[in-house]
Amino acid sequence: MSAPASEHSDGRPAVRPVRLGLAGLGRIGRLHAEHLAGRTPAAELVRVVDVDEAVARDVSTRLGVEWSTSFGDLLDDVDIEGVVIATPTPLHAAMIEQAAAGGKHVFCEKPLAFDLDASHNAVEAARSAPVVLQVGFHRRFDPDWATAAARIHTGQLGDVYLFRTSLRDMAPPPISYVRDSGGLFVDVTIHDLDTARWLVGEIDEVSAFGAARSDPFFAKLGDVDNAIVALRFANGALGVIDETRAAGYGYECSTEVVGSRATVRIGDHRRHHDVWLTPGSASVDWVTDFTERFREAYLLELEEFAAAIREGRQPHVTGEDALSAFVLARACEQSFRERRTIALRREERVGRVIYEAVA
Amino acid sequence: MSAPASEHSDGRPAVRPVRLGLAGLGRIGRLHAEHLAGRTPAAELVRVVDVDEAVARDVSTRLGVEWSTSFGDLLDDVDIEGVVIATPTPLHAAMIEQAAAGGKHVFCEKPLAFDLDASHNAVEAARSAPVVLQVGFHRRFDPDWATAAARIHTGQLGDVYLFRTSLRDMAPPPISYVRDSGGLFVDVTIHDLDTARWLVGEIDEVSAFGAARSDPFFAKLGDVDNAIVALRFANGALGVIDETRAAGYGYECSTEVVGSRATVRIGDHRRHHDVWLTPGSASVDWVTDFTERFREAYLLELEEFAAAIREGRQPHVTGEDALSAFVLARACEQSFRERRTIALRREERVGRVIYEAVA
Amino acid sequence: MSAPASEHSDGRPAVRPVRLGLAGLGRIGRLHAEHLAGRTPAAELVRVVDVDEAVARDVSTRLGVEWSTSFGDLLDDVDIEGVVIATPTPLHAAMIEQAAAGGKHVFCEKPLAFDLDASHNAVEAARSAPVVLQVGFHRRFDPDWATAAARIHTGQLGDVYLFRTSLRDMAPPPISYVRDSGGLFVDVTIHDLDTARWLVGEIDEVSAFGAARSDPFFAKLGDVDNAIVALRFANGALGVIDETRAAGYGYECSTEVVGSRATVRIGDHRRHHDVWLTPGSASVDWVTDFTERFREAYLLELEEFAAAIREGRQPHVTGEDALSAFVLARACEQSFRERRTIALRREERVGRVIYEAVA
Amino acid sequence: MSAPASEHSDGRPAVRPVRLGLAGLGRIGRLHAEHLAGRTPAAELVRVVDVDEAVARDVSTRLGVEWSTSFGDLLDDVDIEGVVIATPTPLHAAMIEQAAAGGKHVFCEKPLAFDLDASHNAVEAARSAPVVLQVGFHRRFDPDWATAAARIHTGQLGDVYLFRTSLRDMAPPPISYVRDSGGLFVDVTIHDLDTARWLVGEIDEVSAFGAARSDPFFAKLGDVDNAIVALRFANGALGVIDETRAAGYGYECSTEVVGSRATVRIGDHRRHHDVWLTPGSASVDWVTDFTERFREAYLLELEEFAAAIREGRQPHVTGEDALSAFVLARACEQSFRERRTIALRREERVGRVIYEAVA
Repeated sequence: MSAPASEHSDGRPAVRPVRLGLAGLGRIGRLHAEHLAGRTPAAELVRVVDVDEAVARDVSTRLGVEWSTSFGDLLDDVDIEGVVIATPTPLHAAMIEQAAAGGKHVFCEKPLAFDLDASHNAVEAARSAPVVLQVGFHRRFDPDWATAAARIHTGQLGDVYLFRTSLRDMAPPPISYVRDSGGLFVDVTIHDLDTARWLVGEIDEVSAFGAARSDPFFAKLGDVDNAIVALRFANGALGVIDETRAAGYGYECSTEVVGSRATVRIGDHRRHHDVWLTPGSASVDWVTDFTERFREAYLLELEEFAAAIREGRQPHVTGEDALSAFVLARACEQSFRERRTIALRREERVGRVIYEAVA
Repeated sequence: MSAPASEHSDGRPAVRPVRLGLAGLGRIGRLHAEHLAGRTPAAELVRVVDVDEAVARDVSTRLGVEWSTSFGDLLDDVDIEGVVIATPTPLHAAMIEQAAAGGKHVFCEKPLAFDLDASHNAVEAARSAPVVLQVGFHRRFDPDWATAAARIHTGQLGDVYLFRTSLRDMAPPPISYVRDSGGLFVDVTIHDLDTARWLVGEIDEVSAFGAARSDPFFAKLGDVDNAIVALRFANGALGVIDETRAAGYGYECSTEVVGSRATVRIGDHRRHHDVWLTPGSASVDWVTDFTERFREAYLLELEEFAAAIREGRQPHVTGEDALSAFVLARACEQSFRERRTIALRREERVGRVIYEAVA
Repeated sequence: MSAPASEHSDGRPAVRPVRLGLAGLGRIGRLHAEHLAGRTPAAELVRVVDVDEAVARDVSTRLGVEWSTSFGDLLDDVDIEGVVIATPTPLHAAMIEQAAAGGKHVFCEKPLAFDLDASHNAVEAARSAPVVLQVGFHRRFDPDWATAAARIHTGQLGDVYLFRTSLRDMAPPPISYVRDSGGLFVDVTIHDLDTARWLVGEIDEVSAFGAARSDPFFAKLGDVDNAIVALRFANGALGVIDETRAAGYGYECSTEVVGSRATVRIGDHRRHHDVWLTPGSASVDWVTDFTERFREAYLLELEEFAAAIREGRQPHVTGEDALSAFVLARACEQSFRERRTIALRREERVGRVIYEAVA
Repeated sequence: MSAPASEHSDGRPAVRPVRLGLAGLGRIGRLHAEHLAGRTPAAELVRVVDVDEAVARDVSTRLGVEWSTSFGDLLDDVDIEGVVIATPTPLHAAMIEQAAAGGKHVFCEKPLAFDLDASHNAVEAARSAPVVLQVGFHRRFDPDWATAAARIHTGQLGDVYLFRTSLRDMAPPPISYVRDSGGLFVDVTIHDLDTARWLVGEIDEVSAFGAARSDPFFAKLGDVDNAIVALRFANGALGVIDETRAAGYGYECSTEVVGSRATVRIGDHRRHHDVWLTPGSASVDWVTDFTERFREAYLLELEEFAAAIREGRQPHVTGEDALSAFVLARACEQSFRERRTIALRREERVGRVIYEAVA
């Protein structure tokens, strides 16, 4: 009988969970906090921060972790190795820089900022610290997309000809959210642009088309709730993204990559495996929400963050990836406004791809 | 015991099958001939015509119908009520005009011509004769698309937000076919443009993107084998078409229309209903060919032609529809060449929609 | 220009459709008549017979074929090569014997009779005439089952371990039908027993369990509307059949064969390929009726009959098969009544398998 | 900034995880240990026990929990509220009694024992202590089955007519496992019998059929590797279980309940949601293992155990359920041996259903 052994019977040392703090207890912040507190063996939640004390206390009580109303408390805690930033976007860049300065690794929700310079600076701060900087492109960790990516990257599809992806929310978010979202392309399309780069490769041209259909406030804000984006990849493949914020039937994120030898397709968002047979009809429940569809991906991205910290390496999706997707999303916005195709150029700087829209 | 009764026991008169001739015994012509000879109760094949006598004789023998090498023989046969034209496209328009002049109803494969004026003249000839003129947009008769159309047109989807369709051939046709095909947009996209108009409505703008990937001859011919087309409908909906001539896995024609209340999606091109389970895998056979996928639609379009003749009405898909889809297909071609969005205007002339690209 | 060529351009003689008569214009008889009149190129319907003159006249008018109220008229018609018998079961055996005596080939709906001796005599009459005798086990011609059978018979499954099949009607037939049906095992299970023999092989033991649940008249008639039958095959495999006459959701006929290396499964009875997405649900239409599910099989079994006649061979499913399935169905009935497993023995007589229940 | 709040901001007290020990670090024991150590917020693993010290130390190191080679250490630990027993079956009953005597709640893998009296005594010990006694019928916690159960129990199916379930392993376990497994019916069928009782209700008769096919050792041991069991439920429904230990294609556990108004069906064991399209084929990966299929159920049954302890109530699946399924499994064994249907009677004792085979 004994306390936890500090090494395996063959002498390998034991590994302890990474200790993390979390700032921002909105919807996604609370989800991450719950995961870190009880469902991610590789990571452990030490403290949560929110400017609203009642919120911070409640989460603290429920999850059995410390709380605070100040981000500085996370940075001062020598026990904390990394921070998860789920605060509103305008706060991201400064918090990344503070964390980097304090030697804390950073997991940050996307986008890094609404401003290109701020995004660059945040990435640079993490890079020079150096600390791990991972962004919340959760789709990269979903087992379906990961399987597809492995098939594509090992050449099982042959030459890639077409990339196609659909992103649909069941109902638009409230106007308060939309107003501060950066617009559909920066808020939503950014995920699909990251997926496109990851699965197929770098992008040379984007052509975006949009429409405001579901609620009059979209038009008032100059935003759209439906969009089509055509892509031309550097390797010659074509791509297309379709999106709506108001697909009445539910949530969907489907992707297909067509190759010369094989094609991979991700869809089928049933909630359970039950088929329900009623007179003349067979039906399955369909997911209504991204947290439901990507529950496992949200866990796995946090495990990846912990693993990157523990192994002293960059995560599978980096600040540079966030920057690339952000530039591409803004090029979509520009294409839509100016009703023309926007070309992009890339520069390899210190081993990193830096995108820029061609004027 | 008696010969076939010429009227029902309640005195309604019996209806006899429509008698048809068929010209052009290439792949699709032979398919139509076989259907008319034995699988379409409403129509009966009297005579087949092909310039190659051996081909005409063989089909004649196999199907037990008369044969000829001259289209004039069909027109001269007073017993024949209508003709099915499956000859090469350059012959279509003149044959339609001859048939119309001879008072024969016409079913013609698409497109009516590669030339806009010739197309107009053919439609006008049928119109003024008047004879029935139906074009071979078989998809309109497939039970899956017909069911979807009924749901859309009765308002079950609510407002339509997005239209999405994929068209994929397993392998490119030979260069000899491609050279005379009119190019991808006129040869292939035309079907999807007709589907878009039928399901969602008239189209205001097209933006086409193409790539030549599978075989070097596409580039040599200035043609493409992969394409994306973004559509803006007059009712505000967005649409997207993706196409490839070289989807290694098989044939596919999938369509989806997303509405505010419901969405309809057509896909799942399994050949049988068998699931084949082998270690770690469940698979179904996938169709490899459009005749396999649309076998029933090819029968039903001929039954519609017979019904339109017998009932003295226009068919569900007309010469004007062919003209509209042709103008749209050429606008896609122009959009691709000029790298810009092409706007379209429509004029209502004598109750018909006439499309025109805005210069 | 010429009349139908009587030979191919290479001199092969032309083949003309087999000329058939049909007796019995109930539901299935009318279906066969419609198929023969316009959808089976290999066969042609000459005359229909029904004791009800109005019914015979109406079908005659609609299909453009001769009519009569007497079966003798079919037999006297020298132009007719074979007859399709879709009259009530008690008439089958005598009509088969008459047809055989008249040298007419016979397609007969199952069962051949409710009486074992009568069944034997009918089969013997066809055999000694000799004429083709095919029974209406349509499932053998469905492309799904035919594909499965090919996989099993070519050894792709390895050793067969389990056979499983479900047969479900949406609602029970009227009491008038059930009263004269011969009971569930003889009326319905007989199809599944034929499928079991065809796919897996001969059967050594049956154990049947039944229940009357949906309507009180089943219990009053001493019949059941739900059943389970366990099978032990001669090759060591186990099998199970489940059946209900009142599966509220629709019609279903699903089969699965589990082997050591692979498994084949037939199911998925969607009516169209459309998926209909409404809030939180994805649904497909489900077939409600066996004629809908087996439309193609009903065509193909008639084409097989015509081919067997034309090629002078036995069809793929014979009178002996009908006899075997009938003995097995009666053994199920006995097993259910006596609450015990019934063993069967087989005798090979003149190359044919003859089943018999062990006392 | 503060330590974990001991109450919510509104004064509700915080709830801390249940502290558990675990005995038996075989395959399923290690799985439970990993879950308890990092994936079940409601429970916390304090100590693991295995007779093999190296195994205990390694798991201890990996999971950061204490270890021991003696079950007594768990019982002596005042900090531990409950124990998870995953040792070999012959040890279960005595360990349950010891735990109950020590006031520890018990989660025990099935079966409770190979002996009926020992099973009874273990249940009685837990009952009189009283401590929570939950058995490892994990399927009850799978969201698919839980959804089906909810639909059945709220009457959405109408009258239940048929129950059907398939259980298939990809390959037989080693002979060493089979020899001590208690035979197919007690080792495997017991799960399906529990599911049958849960979903449809109590069982009056079982009729079992078996065969040894995949490996000669099954016959040598007098065991079977394939089985069919027909059930007659007290409410009049029929049921059927099919099982094989050697379904080459993978693992499967599918269930269907057919009712008069609707039917629920659980199947589709794809590993991911990816469809992989290769020439002429669409395939999905299929699960090969029960831990893969029931990963979530294994988590949820532990959360239920923790919740039952914290809430001072019986769990959703009890020792009495284990006892019932065990009696039914032994009746299947008897039915197979004696080649006859075995009837069962039930006695309600102190509010519990106690099953007994009718001699």
